[in-house]
Amino acid sequence: MNTTYMNQTVQMAIDNVKKNGGPFGAIVVDHNGKIIGKGANVVTKTNDPTAHAEIQAIRQACQAKESFQLSDCVLYTSCEPCPMCFGAIYWAKLQKVYYAADQTMAAAGGFDDAYIYEEMQKPSHERQLPFQEIPLEGRNRPFEEWKKHPDKTEY
Amino acid sequence: MNTTYMNQTVQMAIDNVKKNGGPFGAIVVDHNGKIIGKGANVVTKTNDPTAHAEIQAIRQACQAKESFQLSDCVLYTSCEPCPMCFGAIYWAKLQKVYYAADQTMAAAGGFDDAYIYEEMQKPSHERQLPFQEIPLEGRNRPFEEWKKHPDKTEY
Repeated sequence: MNTTYMNQTVQMAIDNVKKNGGPFGAIVVDHNGKIIGKGANVVTKTNDPTAHAEIQAIRQACQAKESFQLSDCVLYTSCEPCPMCFGAIYWAKLQKVYYAADQTMAAAGGFDDAYIYEEMQKPSHERQLPFQEIPLEGRNRPFEEWKKHPDKTEY
Repeated sequence: MNTTYMNQTVQMAIDNVKKNGGPFGAIVVDHNGKIIGKGANVVTKTNDPTAHAEIQAIRQACQAKESFQLSDCVLYTSCEPCPMCFGAIYWAKLQKVYYAADQTMAAAGGFDDAYIYEEMQKPSHERQLPFQEIPLEGRNRPFEEWKKHPDKTEY
């Protein structure tokens, strides 16, 4: 764990507030200890609800590595990741995550990620945002096509 | 629920396999029933692990609406959303989600989202991808700055 990088994400988060963005910053560091991705929260600035600091840093790091996986990299982030970023971290197959502030601090700051974590545990019909399964005929066909497709790039 | 749109996401997913992308498609429809966002999975094609069909469709719809929220819109997706997309759907504040294939079908097709859902439930030290909290002095400062920042755009 590199304290300089950890502190840097917190400073990025503070600086981002001055730029009228959300109070979050993140850095992706490769196996040589080099920063290959940096991101601050630009949700409201870019009209992109997915533009959290971690997502921005991961996307930049993947472009730098020309790869959709970051298995030899670690992520430093100013705050414990939300469920969306948690998922992105797993899909990117990062090695480890270091975070500064925890979910409780984020909630006190007005960012209630815990609510999304709780909703996820509920059966879909009990959620505030309902998810409805439509048992369409042929809904499995995309996976059948995928399985028989030659030379596919798995991920 | 509009069956034409539901079928369209499945067809997009099938077509995307021929383009060597993942077998997933999604559509965002506004309150007038108009499609304002479409997306297929382009993770491997664009080296972006976050480029799932739902994320692509949400980002496109937000650009069309010039807003980071889609509270008068619904999402149609060929498959039950993964945790990353689940989070994105909540951040975008969509009204409802309709999906065709479920998690079990996705897993049989080689896409084991359930693994990420399970990992999320575990205490961080028991996860395969460890998350470590660093109780840095000043880690709450970004939220303090955020709270006292005038005219901030909340989300």
